[in-house]
Amino acid sequence: MAAFILPENVFAQSNPGYIRIAKLTIDSIKMESYKAALKEHAEAAVRMEPGVIILYAVYEKEHPTHISVFEIYADEDAYQLHIKTPHFLKYKATVQDMVKSLELIDVIPIALESKTKISN
Amino acid sequence: MAAFILPENVFAQSNPGYIRIAKLTIDSIKMESYKAALKEHAEAAVRMEPGVIILYAVYEKEHPTHISVFEIYADEDAYQLHIKTPHFLKYKATVQDMVKSLELIDVIPIALESKTKISN
Repeated sequence: MAAFILPENVFAQSNPGYIRIAKLTIDSIKMESYKAALKEHAEAAVRMEPGVIILYAVYEKEHPTHISVFEIYADEDAYQLHIKTPHFLKYKATVQDMVKSLELIDVIPIALESKTKISN
Repeated sequence: MAAFILPENVFAQSNPGYIRIAKLTIDSIKMESYKAALKEHAEAAVRMEPGVIILYAVYEKEHPTHISVFEIYADEDAYQLHIKTPHFLKYKATVQDMVKSLELIDVIPIALESKTKISN
């Protein structure tokens, strides 16, 4: 049983957060190592950094080496702090020979809708 | 002031949900109408449907007609219900002459990390 609560106005209109989508392609023979490193990094960042709000990392079912990460930071300063943390620098060093391409796309929210409360 | 709470195990290991990324390109002269329709639809779906967990819709800062929607449903049945709802059918009818392309990408989670609690 799990429940989560998200008020509709998580992000004030005046500060929708700093949001981006990272798109990566990974060396296919290194996928398992990459997924482990990314998972460890995402958990550490959201747990330890006040300004890292959401890191949703997925791979494509039809193209498993294609990764997308939906990232929400409190603001751009939080992102700048994030990329100087020991866990981020460790992640970057670990995956440097696994990542074949990386594209960082700044995005603007249209709707950030999430269940106010759900049980499953 | 806003706060939200998300336990780390929102999605049980056995059921990570049905997750996809929708990628759309929109007719540039119809962008404002499209954003309004998408926002209205996302709010209705998450509010009214038990199985629609998250709809995060964004556009690219550098290419504003490029839209991505990060979608989490409780399971595939919830998605099948979703696309038969009156609000979804209304949205589809409203935007049919606004959408230039649509790609639906099924994805598998690597990490779905979100703040357990945050105030801002």
